[in-house]
Amino acid sequence: MAANEKTYLSETAKVDQSSVQPFPNSSKIYVEGSRSDIRVPMREISLADTPTEFGGEQNRPVRVYDTSGPYTDPEVQIDLRTGLPDVRSRWINERDDTEELAAKSSLFATQRLNDPALASLRFQHLRTPRRAKSGANVSQMHYARQGIITPEMEYIAIRENMSLQQAREQGVLQEQHAGQAFGAAIPDEITPEFVRSEVARGRAIIPANINHPELEPMIIGRNFLVKINGNIGNSALGSSIEEEVAKLTWGTRWGADTIMDLSTGKNIHETREWIIRNASVPIGTVPIYQALEKVDGIAEHLTWDIFRDTLIEQAEQGVDYFTIHAGVLLRYVPLTAKRVTGIVSRGGSIMAKWCLAHHQENFLYTHFEDICEIMKAYDVSFSLGDGLRPGSIADANDESQFGELETLGELTKIAWQHDVQTMIEGPGHVPMQMIKENMDKQLRECGEAPFYTLGPLTTDIAPGYDHITSGIGAAMIGWYGCAMLCYVTPKEHLGLPNKDDVKEGIITYKIAAHAADLAKGHPGAQIRDNALSKARFEFRWEDQFNLGLDPDTARAYHDETLPKESAKVAHFCSMCGPKFCSMKITQEVRDYAAEHGTEITLRAPGEAEEVVRMVDVEAEMQKKSDEFRAQGCEIYSKV
Amino acid sequence: MAANEKTYLSETAKVDQSSVQPFPNSSKIYVEGSRSDIRVPMREISLADTPTEFGGEQNRPVRVYDTSGPYTDPEVQIDLRTGLPDVRSRWINERDDTEELAAKSSLFATQRLNDPALASLRFQHLRTPRRAKSGANVSQMHYARQGIITPEMEYIAIRENMSLQQAREQGVLQEQHAGQAFGAAIPDEITPEFVRSEVARGRAIIPANINHPELEPMIIGRNFLVKINGNIGNSALGSSIEEEVAKLTWGTRWGADTIMDLSTGKNIHETREWIIRNASVPIGTVPIYQALEKVDGIAEHLTWDIFRDTLIEQAEQGVDYFTIHAGVLLRYVPLTAKRVTGIVSRGGSIMAKWCLAHHQENFLYTHFEDICEIMKAYDVSFSLGDGLRPGSIADANDESQFGELETLGELTKIAWQHDVQTMIEGPGHVPMQMIKENMDKQLRECGEAPFYTLGPLTTDIAPGYDHITSGIGAAMIGWYGCAMLCYVTPKEHLGLPNKDDVKEGIITYKIAAHAADLAKGHPGAQIRDNALSKARFEFRWEDQFNLGLDPDTARAYHDETLPKESAKVAHFCSMCGPKFCSMKITQEVRDYAAEHGTEITLRAPGEAEEVVRMVDVEAEMQKKSDEFRAQGCEIYSKV
Repeated sequence: MAANEKTYLSETAKVDQSSVQPFPNSSKIYVEGSRSDIRVPMREISLADTPTEFGGEQNRPVRVYDTSGPYTDPEVQIDLRTGLPDVRSRWINERDDTEELAAKSSLFATQRLNDPALASLRFQHLRTPRRAKSGANVSQMHYARQGIITPEMEYIAIRENMSLQQAREQGVLQEQHAGQAFGAAIPDEITPEFVRSEVARGRAIIPANINHPELEPMIIGRNFLVKINGNIGNSALGSSIEEEVAKLTWGTRWGADTIMDLSTGKNIHETREWIIRNASVPIGTVPIYQALEKVDGIAEHLTWDIFRDTLIEQAEQGVDYFTIHAGVLLRYVPLTAKRVTGIVSRGGSIMAKWCLAHHQENFLYTHFEDICEIMKAYDVSFSLGDGLRPGSIADANDESQFGELETLGELTKIAWQHDVQTMIEGPGHVPMQMIKENMDKQLRECGEAPFYTLGPLTTDIAPGYDHITSGIGAAMIGWYGCAMLCYVTPKEHLGLPNKDDVKEGIITYKIAAHAADLAKGHPGAQIRDNALSKARFEFRWEDQFNLGLDPDTARAYHDETLPKESAKVAHFCSMCGPKFCSMKITQEVRDYAAEHGTEITLRAPGEAEEVVRMVDVEAEMQKKSDEFRAQGCEIYSKV
Repeated sequence: MAANEKTYLSETAKVDQSSVQPFPNSSKIYVEGSRSDIRVPMREISLADTPTEFGGEQNRPVRVYDTSGPYTDPEVQIDLRTGLPDVRSRWINERDDTEELAAKSSLFATQRLNDPALASLRFQHLRTPRRAKSGANVSQMHYARQGIITPEMEYIAIRENMSLQQAREQGVLQEQHAGQAFGAAIPDEITPEFVRSEVARGRAIIPANINHPELEPMIIGRNFLVKINGNIGNSALGSSIEEEVAKLTWGTRWGADTIMDLSTGKNIHETREWIIRNASVPIGTVPIYQALEKVDGIAEHLTWDIFRDTLIEQAEQGVDYFTIHAGVLLRYVPLTAKRVTGIVSRGGSIMAKWCLAHHQENFLYTHFEDICEIMKAYDVSFSLGDGLRPGSIADANDESQFGELETLGELTKIAWQHDVQTMIEGPGHVPMQMIKENMDKQLRECGEAPFYTLGPLTTDIAPGYDHITSGIGAAMIGWYGCAMLCYVTPKEHLGLPNKDDVKEGIITYKIAAHAADLAKGHPGAQIRDNALSKARFEFRWEDQFNLGLDPDTARAYHDETLPKESAKVAHFCSMCGPKFCSMKITQEVRDYAAEHGTEITLRAPGEAEEVVRMVDVEAEMQKKSDEFRAQGCEIYSKV
């Protein structure tokens, strides 16, 4: 073992301890489906009772979508060297349309496997690769189009409905502010049949390679919860296998729905094996990155054969979706010349360089149907890359960007002819007023295939804060119908994100996705907001922290001003101090209204026909005002 | 001097050193108006030349709006104990409609002045208060309505046009993406007459108390650059005068256009004096906070007389705008009882409590015309407070919120009858799909008076990240027409912001405001984006940092991965490493297109009639492709 390899993977390869801590007051629960091996994980956050003076009722635990995988289940023994427990193998086997391969089909993968110098880096428990039987198509879209509801689809329906029961109990479905979904058609309940129909229609994808049975199935589509992706990956400048796996577990702990491994450094093949075997979320890659490494970074040396072998290599490892920059056509390339920032996509510039050097059409385009054949043999989903996305506000929505998008629309239809699941990547840098045009055009050109955007960043002037410049655009495009948002970290444009940056990016994007779910009126999305706001109002500090996206930071910020434990049960906060509290006064208003039985009829949102009878209220108040003053106007004298 | 007072103000009272550092590669310039005492400060950022291989042209310095005041001018000696230099006294005197007062008109202020125990806290160089001569109205709105263009208005026109010259030179006004301004009418050039007409119309305000001559005039209105406000202020839990002044200088350094002093702790009067005398931006307050302190925090003990004396006390110190919760009417209060979070505004709950206790209509409403008389005697602007704003997603856009907004519309018209400048405060917590309804209703009800919102926060589930949940809503409502955005820090709902939090909040809101300016198509707004993106593309790292909102953080993030100085001139970054760089490839595309003289006609944004002649390009490319390959496809071999 070479000395520099040694630093690449330690002998012990331990799981990142910060990723396996259960969340405070939370327990991992599993909701069982129609068969006992459909066990859908959720996180249930327990809440304290409402204090007596606020009514004293019990607060039901809140269930939240859980991407953290078995890592946060104290019942599961985690060992990175053996990988995660199997979730889907039985389902895959039952379909009886795949076969185990005697050996890896990729030449490169075989070389790596047989290289004794890599023994120390190699994942110890490689899975035997599977592939579709000859002539079979094993994509979830293919099943869906035959009317088959797979266990994956049922799993997803249960998962997406995590708040439904509570929403019904609390009447939130009815009362919830009507969202504005811009043509999306989100049902009140996500049924397995609805999942099937959306996948069959191409409006949603279930990235789930048959070689990634550790996967907890999830769905990407605009009639479902908005998802987010986090990027990891080593580079020529550093990072080890353990660090990359830690980024994976750390990212999913905080809410990444998928992870893209964008490695461009050393030992990409082995790094990816560790990542996939330890990933409960779909893993995406940009295969052209690894292909480029295989030709020593010289784009014009790329060939279809090298690329094809890379696709098969990665498909047999279990990559769930591939970014393929097949829309970077020769004729679009010169259109970028007058841009302020030209081509900023790595994959896009690789293909542009190849096209210019050979003066041939992009081989990803000319071989697109060959790629489809590979995709459907493993159920790898397309993420059609936007190699010509704008890299600055000045370049937004220009001819080259939209030309490529039109081509991606053509390719989507070809992929669908093969029943290959497909989503479309989008920008980039786009000012607010031009975001909706992107979404509308994508839906139109690509037949409503899911859109998956990087931000977009709404201004260029804040390096160091591009999680925020892009979080604004991400929330908006999520509302408009974007199905998945690729996170941006504070280090964007400046450097490689560290652990704090990854978390900051993930949390920012969870905010954007959830804001979009609220705006679309996703059933039950508001349950968590309502529970948190109720906790806030009732001074249940711990519940407020625990219901938040990041309980640790919320608690730490609170404790900076009021560190004592007693402050966590205090009925005031540091903003107004103990002497005066607006929430206390509200409670007095509420008690007053409750006590005096005024006939206030509130106008329910969206229901204009109900009228507030203010006269009754006023009369009642007049009568009782002296009583109120006599009480001394201070109900909570004990604070 | 009591021991506890000693900690309140040190003998030396030094300026916060971090607030007086000039920005890197920046110089303070002053643009002179029609008279030599109109000297409008701007920050000019010098840029390096484009590297030879990218074309070698000179890059003109970029002018940016500068709120930092004299603190960042190395020519100005700063002494907190004497306060800032005078900007406006000559203009005020020339109008000859005010008079110096022999003594302060406020009883409370007089008591404080005569209290020897406060000598050590007192600002040493108190200004003699001024007031309008009997019967005079000294508001900018009053002048505007008489057709008078004040020096303040001319100053503002120059200030708002800071990028105009460059935009014209670079042709950006023509090329700039057409914004979507939702009925706003932003001219290509802001003239003094346009400023006057907008103020006369009530569509913009110039908060500029005659007792705050240190002020550098600015404007708040939807046909101008979107402004942001930062909050400071002590509380019962702590902070000293020096700390508060440091928050002011720190906040304006990073871009706060106005500062609100929300002090509720000790020595509010003296603290405010230090703040105003050292503030080059308008200072806003919520006078009811101080009035409440005067009655020991017991809301029902508030009286009109106490409040009136507080208004006069603060007006004679130089406060530029007052938040007045005059729309919290008795009849709206019970409507909040069924809310998830009731009344969350401090001022709103104070007035609600007072109304309930006395069963009388809000005295701010019944005395509204009396308040107008005070406002016009000093030119204090109204910021009509939204005491019933929603504190949670569940409560957004409800009956009590919109009822109060309608009342604020009525009050706006009364204020305008007195020629008193008026803006309207807005929410709060609002999901994305309900934001525009807020803006539209405000414009309609309030006759297009400027809207000034707190966020809004687009979800409740991220305590610790509410600068981001609200930055999303702020950018959107800014685009829709909101004139000023009140910042939210990461500590919102949790604790008191420290210096880092203030900066984080300010930068987030500068992003939101600028994103809105871009979306509205504000003339020249895109100059800075374009300059930064060009610097980024050309690997001018220092320029990229310096053009950003926070050069320090951008540089620090870059240096985390590539700390060496040599990396700042390297033509690659840490994302892709030295071997491969997408920007380099773009430059090759560009060189190629330039060199080979293809007849590419780019379709200018928004101009559909121009057609791209792809055939020419393809023919040309075919002919030249071998040449290109013969060059070895690597133009920048030296990297």
